[in-house]
Amino acid sequence: MITSADNDKLKLIRRLRERKHREREGLFAAEGEDLVEAAERAGWEPAVLLRAGVDVESELLERASSLGSGSRVVGVYEQRWSEPHGDVSVYLHEVGDPGNVGTLIRAGHALADGPVILGPGCADAYSPKAVRASMGSVFARPPARSELASLPGARLALDARADGVIADVRLSPPLVICAGAERDGLPTELLEAADARARVPIRADGPDSLNVAMAVTVALYELGNRMLRP
Amino acid sequence: MITSADNDKLKLIRRLRERKHREREGLFAAEGEDLVEAAERAGWEPAVLLRAGVDVESELLERASSLGSGSRVVGVYEQRWSEPHGDVSVYLHEVGDPGNVGTLIRAGHALADGPVILGPGCADAYSPKAVRASMGSVFARPPARSELASLPGARLALDARADGVIADVRLSPPLVICAGAERDGLPTELLEAADARARVPIRADGPDSLNVAMAVTVALYELGNRMLRP
Repeated sequence: MITSADNDKLKLIRRLRERKHREREGLFAAEGEDLVEAAERAGWEPAVLLRAGVDVESELLERASSLGSGSRVVGVYEQRWSEPHGDVSVYLHEVGDPGNVGTLIRAGHALADGPVILGPGCADAYSPKAVRASMGSVFARPPARSELASLPGARLALDARADGVIADVRLSPPLVICAGAERDGLPTELLEAADARARVPIRADGPDSLNVAMAVTVALYELGNRMLRP
Repeated sequence: MITSADNDKLKLIRRLRERKHREREGLFAAEGEDLVEAAERAGWEPAVLLRAGVDVESELLERASSLGSGSRVVGVYEQRWSEPHGDVSVYLHEVGDPGNVGTLIRAGHALADGPVILGPGCADAYSPKAVRASMGSVFARPPARSELASLPGARLALDARADGVIADVRLSPPLVICAGAERDGLPTELLEAADARARVPIRADGPDSLNVAMAVTVALYELGNRMLRP
């Protein structure tokens, strides 16, 4: 039983709160029973597994955890990265909110056969907030990393200012649904490189746009459904 | 210029971090220029408005803010509650995550004509996290509070275990889309009281269910679109 905060495993878990350490070590921490069980179901072996009151004093584990949620278990895992693949996948450009990245990893797992592909400027999919928002889908469907230009297939740009709506998109798979930063959307050069642009239709008296996680999820429902269930 | 943390307005803002004080005073705080501008566009007058470096020392405002985001402006507003109305609205039961409540207030503003109706056990729509997640839609479309039993109209229960899918739902407006807690869904008595149950179709190799904010947003897209754009 670990009884000192100076323990190497606890120090590792604390270091993994920071992106630079996660990237340097190629590891990340998953906090809580639900996530550790999701890892197990997906066949991931933890590099470190600490259970409160069994392997480590509860208070020490709580202080090492990043989410302040009083996790009873923390697992440390090697990061895995998929290659882009599938008939429907998602490409994100400068989506900086880890909650949105994690939520979309979960939505992609539910509604697409390909991964979420992280372009430049995206939040770390292996940050504590993103892993938690993915609710374990990061284990079942690890994200990919790529520039848009090197992806095969048709690109649909989600663009709140587009004339057309997603229900009218006629592109054949493989299809990459592309979305940009919460506030600014996709930059002009990516909009111009797309094979089609479309918006999720929203009410005239509604907000300017939907949150990026919402918009991509609706597009996955509309297009993923159509392409993957012939 | 306020130069002491002991100032009454700063003390009010700090108190409003807690639900009991928000409820007692009937007020809430909105942090950041985007939210304060959204309030202004929707015609809400602040009871208190503090701008960093103008009305108050920046560091004092930052310490009073709950989000740790270094907000440059904080507005305090009176809570408003809608009556249930509209051809399409959303009823939430025990949705305890304020991010989900706020996200759905935004999705409802985008895709429905009625409010988000908060049933028992829901997170406070006027908590800092919910207000931020609503991205200002809480001002344009204030939430309602009600028990499900007293709502008029047809009730569609979102249920991950339902046989039917949302695209096949045939109910006439007014329609209330009902959803439950992130993990447990709606309780049996609410499922049985519904006029129809349906699920958002997800992949067989996907997760057990979608996050409640995702599922309701997709249902609003599928059903709100159909009912509101004849």
